[in-house]
Amino acid sequence: MMDELGLLAKILPMLPDRPDVAVPPGDDAAAVRIGGRLLLAASDQLASDVHFYLDGTPACEAGAKLLKRNLSDIAAMGGTPAWCLVNLACRGVTGQWITDFHRGICETARRFNVAVIGGDLCETATDGVAASLTILGTVEEEKLCLRKNVRPGDAIYATGTFGNSLASGSHLAFTPRLAEAEWLAGRFTDAMMDVSDGPALDLERMAAASNVAIIIDPEKLPPRDGADVDHRLGDGEDYELLFAVRPQLVQQLEAEWPFDTPLTAIGCAASGEPGLTDINGRKIKQHGYQHFKDL
Amino acid sequence: MMDELGLLAKILPMLPDRPDVAVPPGDDAAAVRIGGRLLLAASDQLASDVHFYLDGTPACEAGAKLLKRNLSDIAAMGGTPAWCLVNLACRGVTGQWITDFHRGICETARRFNVAVIGGDLCETATDGVAASLTILGTVEEEKLCLRKNVRPGDAIYATGTFGNSLASGSHLAFTPRLAEAEWLAGRFTDAMMDVSDGPALDLERMAAASNVAIIIDPEKLPPRDGADVDHRLGDGEDYELLFAVRPQLVQQLEAEWPFDTPLTAIGCAASGEPGLTDINGRKIKQHGYQHFKDL
Repeated sequence: MMDELGLLAKILPMLPDRPDVAVPPGDDAAAVRIGGRLLLAASDQLASDVHFYLDGTPACEAGAKLLKRNLSDIAAMGGTPAWCLVNLACRGVTGQWITDFHRGICETARRFNVAVIGGDLCETATDGVAASLTILGTVEEEKLCLRKNVRPGDAIYATGTFGNSLASGSHLAFTPRLAEAEWLAGRFTDAMMDVSDGPALDLERMAAASNVAIIIDPEKLPPRDGADVDHRLGDGEDYELLFAVRPQLVQQLEAEWPFDTPLTAIGCAASGEPGLTDINGRKIKQHGYQHFKDL
Repeated sequence: MMDELGLLAKILPMLPDRPDVAVPPGDDAAAVRIGGRLLLAASDQLASDVHFYLDGTPACEAGAKLLKRNLSDIAAMGGTPAWCLVNLACRGVTGQWITDFHRGICETARRFNVAVIGGDLCETATDGVAASLTILGTVEEEKLCLRKNVRPGDAIYATGTFGNSLASGSHLAFTPRLAEAEWLAGRFTDAMMDVSDGPALDLERMAAASNVAIIIDPEKLPPRDGADVDHRLGDGEDYELLFAVRPQLVQQLEAEWPFDTPLTAIGCAASGEPGLTDINGRKIKQHGYQHFKDL
């Protein structure tokens, strides 16, 4: 039996590298060097009745979601999105649906100053929608944020609220935290990631990448629409930012934070066995969605 | 009723642009300016039982094909591939299939010095495979080849052979013409495209983009495995190069061509109504595969 993690364990070691790859796969986006600049690249998918319900989701909101998921990845790297390519494979939807899906992408792209520079449209053999989007952007070397940069003693912060993303509609309506990330990157943090699979799983990943213990008080995660602690930890699709701040910058960060978006200190990092625990030292259970549970 | 061309006519005008986009969508790849360099980007898809038969196609060959289709696009721009991102959405295939699919991509990537820097893996709600790949590369400004650069008086050349791509297995086994394109670009041509939908349809596109008449002798298209003229013109999936050469360079090109790959003069460009005709002035019927015939 194999699941998503088992598959990734087989696939990731095979991936060919090059000397100009500055950030290899495994972070929110990869970075490569070109013409003295850092180019960011990330790809994400959207499948009908997995990431959105074909019945009841306006096509333009599905399209917008696909782009915003990718924008959230660029934000988490401290970068600025610039260009994207869109692929749509589908059958059993109308021409209007396909047009509206692209309209949702294009309107969102325009809002965030992203050009749509390519893609492909193809009909599948069976009904359904599988879309993918590759986002490209740039990042200043001194603003690059990696999930492996958390250090013992750092405070761990989160933007926004958690849980109930599906019921509240925020999994479609969310705003990628580009403005917040740009303000934070290089000034208050160089360790950041976005929350797509829920803070429990994503903080666990951050702890593993940084080789630190992360200790949080789950009660401090601000609830979306009254979500309980389990839902805040594990629902996912929050598209908020998690980031680490050196202790000497905490006071300044809280004093200068210029956004309406909630900013919350949820815990800290310490040396010790990599992993995520609560303030009572209990391991926080991994939640999160696993594709391919029983291959 | 809408088909692929109808859809594209609706979608293409919506796509947001930016001033740093040097080659917008519509060529084999887009090009954007970053750090004084030109970055090429293209995306392509592969759907089971549309682009390959799930039954009977080794997964590693399907993966290799997806990358090679994209490499062919970079070749046609006169560029060098460098990085790619792979997305796979599927259900009803084994973990071994998924691993082999990625192995096919990774082996091909290594062969052409391409790093795999990202992607996504997700399970769909229904059976089948929809994969997409985004290729990134670079091109020297003076080597950039565009399909709009054909000029009246140019000779039109083709590499390789045409037709029977499915029966012969060449739709899987082909070698993208990167070496040939690199040798040609900037020296013998600045007008090139790759043949994915058959020379009839692709030369028609080249003629329209360049606003010239293209006149070919279809009999001159070298056959693959005895393919008749109709199949050579319309089968598609040849992944050969079509390119235009100024008349004063023709003799030198033919004298210096260093490859085993066949090189064939198939016709010429002239001023006049944009389109593709044979040497008797007859319009060559458009063939080629259309997705979404009856939306």
